[in-house]
Amino acid sequence: MAGFERIGSEQAWSGRIASVRVDRFRHEDGEEVSREIVSHPGAVAVLAHDGERLYLVSQPREPVDESALLELPAGKLDEEGEDALATAMRELAEEIGKGARSWRHMKTFYSSAGFSDEEIHVYLATDLYDERAETDENERIEVQAVPLDRLDEAIAASRDAKTLIGLLWFRAYGDGGP
Amino acid sequence: MAGFERIGSEQAWSGRIASVRVDRFRHEDGEEVSREIVSHPGAVAVLAHDGERLYLVSQPREPVDESALLELPAGKLDEEGEDALATAMRELAEEIGKGARSWRHMKTFYSSAGFSDEEIHVYLATDLYDERAETDENERIEVQAVPLDRLDEAIAASRDAKTLIGLLWFRAYGDGGP
Repeated sequence: MAGFERIGSEQAWSGRIASVRVDRFRHEDGEEVSREIVSHPGAVAVLAHDGERLYLVSQPREPVDESALLELPAGKLDEEGEDALATAMRELAEEIGKGARSWRHMKTFYSSAGFSDEEIHVYLATDLYDERAETDENERIEVQAVPLDRLDEAIAASRDAKTLIGLLWFRAYGDGGP
Repeated sequence: MAGFERIGSEQAWSGRIASVRVDRFRHEDGEEVSREIVSHPGAVAVLAHDGERLYLVSQPREPVDESALLELPAGKLDEEGEDALATAMRELAEEIGKGARSWRHMKTFYSSAGFSDEEIHVYLATDLYDERAETDENERIEVQAVPLDRLDEAIAASRDAKTLIGLLWFRAYGDGGP
């Protein structure tokens, strides 16, 4: 498999969260290609459970026209280079009012590698304790506690990439790992 | 959970594959919000196995700076409204030179619901047969046959959302389902 190098980059659009570049690449065999790339700071998501229940959130997602999408607690990395685990801890407190004594990195993945550079880091948080919920900017988030014996139903109901990856990974490996 | 309605939409950028809109929404409580939305035609992905091996592809993904990302065979819906299953059948033939007598819808998910409307439809294809591979536009795709008893290794190596969802779903449910 040949490698490639970036030989050009042009900013096409810049928004509050994402931006778009059109980059050119030259492959080792000389072929040049251009790619439209949506640039995003990246995000974290947390599968948190206390041995009896796991904690999801439901919130409106206007881009996909959903009034209550079921998701893992999650959030954007505030800036390039922000520590992912610290972000995950903050989001867990903000969105469900919990802290965790045990943290484990589950998986880091690209949400859509064909046109976006977004990476999402998923953590497993256990040994939970109550923490005063920080004020969150989004008051439309609703916490949903799901009994662990209803995990298959949560998987069947989920239509969000990071949430499916977290729930399916937990269904396959529990607190262990591959 | 309150609903919302779209009250405005402005095209911000338009590319070959994706485009960007900035839409305004009014929630039932009167609050108005604007959202940057990357619009994408959607895609399909296929977990195909013959009882002994499953078939992945590896290809360069310039947007995430990967020279050989391991993925399920996949492709974009060519236009709005193209039948997802027909696209999945075409992509399986194009990318790995296989047809399948049995098709099952596994999952449809949003790759990144916070800023993109992309939906990906994942299918399970079994009872495979050889088909003359159609000429594909991308000659950099390399087929990788993975023995089913090395599924956990493929999951550990995967960093692509649709691929993880397909592999983990298959790890959890096999040819059955939740």
